[in-house]
Amino acid sequence: MSGNSIGRLFVVTTFGESHGSAIGAVVDGCPPGIELSREYVQKELDRRRPGQSELTTSRSEQDYVEILSGIFEGKTTGTSIGLLIRNQDAISKHYKDLQDLFRPGHADFGYWAKYGLRDWKGGGRSSGRETAARVAAGAIARRILEGFGVWLHGGTIAVGSVRAEKFLPEAIEKNPVRCPDPDRAGEMAALIEKVKGQGDSIGGLVEVRVFGAPAGLGEPVFSKLDADLASALMGIGAVKGVEFGDGFETAKRKGSENSDPFVSEGGKIHTRYNRAGGILGGISTGDPIVVRVAVKPTSSIAREQESVNLKGEPVKFSTGGRHDPCICPRIVPVAEAMVAIVLADHLLRQRGQCGK
Amino acid sequence: MSGNSIGRLFVVTTFGESHGSAIGAVVDGCPPGIELSREYVQKELDRRRPGQSELTTSRSEQDYVEILSGIFEGKTTGTSIGLLIRNQDAISKHYKDLQDLFRPGHADFGYWAKYGLRDWKGGGRSSGRETAARVAAGAIARRILEGFGVWLHGGTIAVGSVRAEKFLPEAIEKNPVRCPDPDRAGEMAALIEKVKGQGDSIGGLVEVRVFGAPAGLGEPVFSKLDADLASALMGIGAVKGVEFGDGFETAKRKGSENSDPFVSEGGKIHTRYNRAGGILGGISTGDPIVVRVAVKPTSSIAREQESVNLKGEPVKFSTGGRHDPCICPRIVPVAEAMVAIVLADHLLRQRGQCGK
Amino acid sequence: MSGNSIGRLFVVTTFGESHGSAIGAVVDGCPPGIELSREYVQKELDRRRPGQSELTTSRSEQDYVEILSGIFEGKTTGTSIGLLIRNQDAISKHYKDLQDLFRPGHADFGYWAKYGLRDWKGGGRSSGRETAARVAAGAIARRILEGFGVWLHGGTIAVGSVRAEKFLPEAIEKNPVRCPDPDRAGEMAALIEKVKGQGDSIGGLVEVRVFGAPAGLGEPVFSKLDADLASALMGIGAVKGVEFGDGFETAKRKGSENSDPFVSEGGKIHTRYNRAGGILGGISTGDPIVVRVAVKPTSSIAREQESVNLKGEPVKFSTGGRHDPCICPRIVPVAEAMVAIVLADHLLRQRGQCGK
Amino acid sequence: MSGNSIGRLFVVTTFGESHGSAIGAVVDGCPPGIELSREYVQKELDRRRPGQSELTTSRSEQDYVEILSGIFEGKTTGTSIGLLIRNQDAISKHYKDLQDLFRPGHADFGYWAKYGLRDWKGGGRSSGRETAARVAAGAIARRILEGFGVWLHGGTIAVGSVRAEKFLPEAIEKNPVRCPDPDRAGEMAALIEKVKGQGDSIGGLVEVRVFGAPAGLGEPVFSKLDADLASALMGIGAVKGVEFGDGFETAKRKGSENSDPFVSEGGKIHTRYNRAGGILGGISTGDPIVVRVAVKPTSSIAREQESVNLKGEPVKFSTGGRHDPCICPRIVPVAEAMVAIVLADHLLRQRGQCGK
Repeated sequence: MSGNSIGRLFVVTTFGESHGSAIGAVVDGCPPGIELSREYVQKELDRRRPGQSELTTSRSEQDYVEILSGIFEGKTTGTSIGLLIRNQDAISKHYKDLQDLFRPGHADFGYWAKYGLRDWKGGGRSSGRETAARVAAGAIARRILEGFGVWLHGGTIAVGSVRAEKFLPEAIEKNPVRCPDPDRAGEMAALIEKVKGQGDSIGGLVEVRVFGAPAGLGEPVFSKLDADLASALMGIGAVKGVEFGDGFETAKRKGSENSDPFVSEGGKIHTRYNRAGGILGGISTGDPIVVRVAVKPTSSIAREQESVNLKGEPVKFSTGGRHDPCICPRIVPVAEAMVAIVLADHLLRQRGQCGK
Repeated sequence: MSGNSIGRLFVVTTFGESHGSAIGAVVDGCPPGIELSREYVQKELDRRRPGQSELTTSRSEQDYVEILSGIFEGKTTGTSIGLLIRNQDAISKHYKDLQDLFRPGHADFGYWAKYGLRDWKGGGRSSGRETAARVAAGAIARRILEGFGVWLHGGTIAVGSVRAEKFLPEAIEKNPVRCPDPDRAGEMAALIEKVKGQGDSIGGLVEVRVFGAPAGLGEPVFSKLDADLASALMGIGAVKGVEFGDGFETAKRKGSENSDPFVSEGGKIHTRYNRAGGILGGISTGDPIVVRVAVKPTSSIAREQESVNLKGEPVKFSTGGRHDPCICPRIVPVAEAMVAIVLADHLLRQRGQCGK
Repeated sequence: MSGNSIGRLFVVTTFGESHGSAIGAVVDGCPPGIELSREYVQKELDRRRPGQSELTTSRSEQDYVEILSGIFEGKTTGTSIGLLIRNQDAISKHYKDLQDLFRPGHADFGYWAKYGLRDWKGGGRSSGRETAARVAAGAIARRILEGFGVWLHGGTIAVGSVRAEKFLPEAIEKNPVRCPDPDRAGEMAALIEKVKGQGDSIGGLVEVRVFGAPAGLGEPVFSKLDADLASALMGIGAVKGVEFGDGFETAKRKGSENSDPFVSEGGKIHTRYNRAGGILGGISTGDPIVVRVAVKPTSSIAREQESVNLKGEPVKFSTGGRHDPCICPRIVPVAEAMVAIVLADHLLRQRGQCGK
Repeated sequence: MSGNSIGRLFVVTTFGESHGSAIGAVVDGCPPGIELSREYVQKELDRRRPGQSELTTSRSEQDYVEILSGIFEGKTTGTSIGLLIRNQDAISKHYKDLQDLFRPGHADFGYWAKYGLRDWKGGGRSSGRETAARVAAGAIARRILEGFGVWLHGGTIAVGSVRAEKFLPEAIEKNPVRCPDPDRAGEMAALIEKVKGQGDSIGGLVEVRVFGAPAGLGEPVFSKLDADLASALMGIGAVKGVEFGDGFETAKRKGSENSDPFVSEGGKIHTRYNRAGGILGGISTGDPIVVRVAVKPTSSIAREQESVNLKGEPVKFSTGGRHDPCICPRIVPVAEAMVAIVLADHLLRQRGQCGK
């Protein structure tokens, strides 16, 4: 796999820039015979799409996905699946002012240093738009997961300092923040509206929970399940931290406080408290997998910021008004997609090596 | 690469169980012509070795490394380097009592579920002992980094709630906690001694800082520098979280609070505060790379714990007295090794694709 | 890399079936700053396109390629390049009769056994049409090669028992057989016309020669240059054998007959006779690389053949009239593309590991 | 995977030079629960070992293999298996005279051009000795194959122009040439003895046949079964060509002559003549897989040869007397090992993706 690919047996490769003609993905290694429709993939894309509510960017992107290959009479054939999403609303002039500028918090400078040139239109390859291709591929991964009895839910569990206290999957899609705690969703939405009004943005936490995953997924050393998930999630723009289960909290605990006995109930062995978030020694325990990412506030804000241009000269600037004041609600489907892609790969690898 | 390999161009593959005859690694893709001695590798291993101080396990492991191949007249040849460390002090009887037990906080149950059998002696492949092979391989990665003008330091920046306030590299090896803040090292050591006396253990934070890394390392989408580092570090046993720069703190901030302008000084462009920890959009900025991991308290403690056995029956047990009361000091060289391995790979990949 | 990907640093991933909506490729790891136009890629595709002469199939495929990403202002950006070719003239009814049939010499039965279903339209993924995506990707590889001073030529050196005795690169595109020996091109063309008239087909040999490749390309053990080239070429449909230099002839020789001294001329060391085809011990010697593939006669012929259907019942059938009577002329650009892809990868890997 | 690794799910990584302290391999991805003893692996190594008969080199290498990890109570655990073979009889002085010389037919010059230095003792990494590690790893692959009901036999089917006319597996190990045709084994042996007496060497053909492999193995495009086998076999030193089934012969045929109908017998569909060697479109048909390699005569011969030294000056030299006059008998177990490794990988990948 290369820098635009992820996975071993189930491999997703993506391409495309924000303001080029299209973005897309190739999904390789999908088992044959799985029912898959364009509409199923589109449904996931619609969850990521800009312009869903007042809380997200007002950019209009239809994100219509076309399945180019790998499906025959409604089922996957086992060969590589081409996915194509044409770009629209690519008004490059919005970015013309920024072409000589290294925007703070963005990859502009890194790209320029790496490649010696950069596609400055809307961030080019580093644009969040690239994640649409991941979500489309993730939809296919979800279909694989369903076949193994595995499903997952992501939610925004914090906006700034407002934190959810419950994780009710059924609540998530009922509020625009995608908060799994209906009692806090309103407060979060209000906070986002407020910072938006200030020409500002705000960070938050997104959590994904996986249910039904069997014990035994993950490799012992370098492709541990948590390592692969961490990589997949840290690779989402704006994510600055990843933790499993009680995560950073455990760093403050004593061993006796963190002890989490295995218990047996109804013939099934599991942990009493799931403090580890479903993964011990890099291998799933059969408990729900709980992973959480720290999402920084959107770097592009209406307020004036400082930076330098290509010549190193200081400049002041502000970036339009179409950016998400809090990216968490739209990161939810992306994080789910990344988790689904990693799990699909591990389920197939596990079946390959261990025959189950 | 497979589940026991990491890297693309610079690839490390490891093998070995805690109580088998040996552990080791194969290091592939090392540039030719680099001076490398057995002693250089041994020096790093000695930093990870048990029994260095009162704060670590009293197990005695010499961890003598033998370089089997890939070196000719003191220099790397460019071919694969075999590294071998024979096991000693492998008193399996210590573990005999545990062979039917799923130890809480360990991979025992996951292995059993995955493979249908397990090497119960000292944790088998899931033992922390496996990391010795990583450290040996990491020593070679460090030599590559040196050739690119890159170096790094890891330190224990928190033990329980005691937190370092400075990061002075020169202080690290002068105290047994490997704390980079000499004013807090004593307090940390005392806390470790205290929990040890209680038959307990304690968690902490380990931070690695990389200096001299050029801007431009990392791939845009799925092999981002932070994604690869997160994977490498999350793959260390006991690590439950990874964050870069201000990490989880940024999730609480507004965009205006988190803004970090690029500035130009002496012809060099860098960020004013390095809030991102040296990586933006997955690509290095040329600022120091700052990454931090949450280390849970050692799960094996002298105090009695509960669990179940292979039959699912509840059992009570305690695990001897030779476990590290705080694993952070010994994770420091392992975390450094993992960071070095990832950086060496990205430096070579960058040279391959971009010719610099 | 996965089953639809090839390469390590320079990675090509393809998708698409013969009669689906499109085929295409993602090219990853291309160095930045290389001038690349759609027309350059199209030119190579036109060489592979059906319907170029009386000697090839009369199917009409425009094979218009669209570059979807990875190019900015006429240059490669270093990010993944999406390539799309829409299918046309996909008259599935031609194949309707064949949907229950396992065509001899084709992958039909293998697909059915592997996946439990198959896209029977025109061979689906196993169709030769898939190679258009390789040729498009190969065009990009050629641009990389040019930057390293490497170029290559492929030619049809045998049709049936008629064999070329010269390899004049400039002659190749001047005759429809793509024979590098102008004195034999006519005889070959006549033979192809003759078998075509008989409703039959004929096999042949295709040779690719690479010039300007530096000594030192290839890995010592499992990614030898000849091993990677053999894989790339054997992966072309209809190819049943691969050999380098004197190839199978050397199996009959004594060591003294096969000895090929290194000589030094003008400060450059090379072999006297290049019997090894430019590769010794898996690593290039700096001599021209000479590789040859055996191409079986097209399996789809107008003459009646026997086989069985899905139920295992014997059937007799013949396959229309639009198949290539000799596929060699159209395999030439595909073989060139595969060689170019492998060399581009090795040039970048070599630069990555060895810095040159 | 890297340049010293092969495989995707079942991955073999090797290390070691001819005259270093040891060679070895790491075998990753082996299914758990397979019975595996040191003796089983040793048995295969003994077949490759020098000094088995008058027809092979008189060098004495015990090739004692040690299994370092991945086995517990006689069964594979599913974790990586370390294999170690210490070098003996490494009399470097034999090679001292050659250290400034680029031996014809060897990788000496390529290594020097690639790495800027070379381990001249016995060819270093490019020595045929490296294949012992492959054979050890291949023994493990064979155990996996057995579990799937797959087995294989390799034999020397030609020495110079003396060619076998039968392939009787049971005959192979009964003659020192490993010829599957007992009526030709004597003639072959006499020819080898003769060239040996002349201080010369001779080439030949080695064929491997695989029985019991299910239909459906192999990927459609870039990891076709024949492509992966070709790579694995071309990567053996001295191999200059690879072909499947009727191979290069088919290049001379008409389609009507090469037609090979599917037939159904006893409910099993297979081809009538197996002209394709068990692989069509890159995917196994369920027929025996037949692959053949061209082996050049050993380049190191007692007769005087010419070449140049590091300075480019012409030199005359001859290489001792301990080289194999015909390497075919000892390539047989190596070729079998490579075929077994590729098949094990594909069987596991197939199970992973397709669940069977």
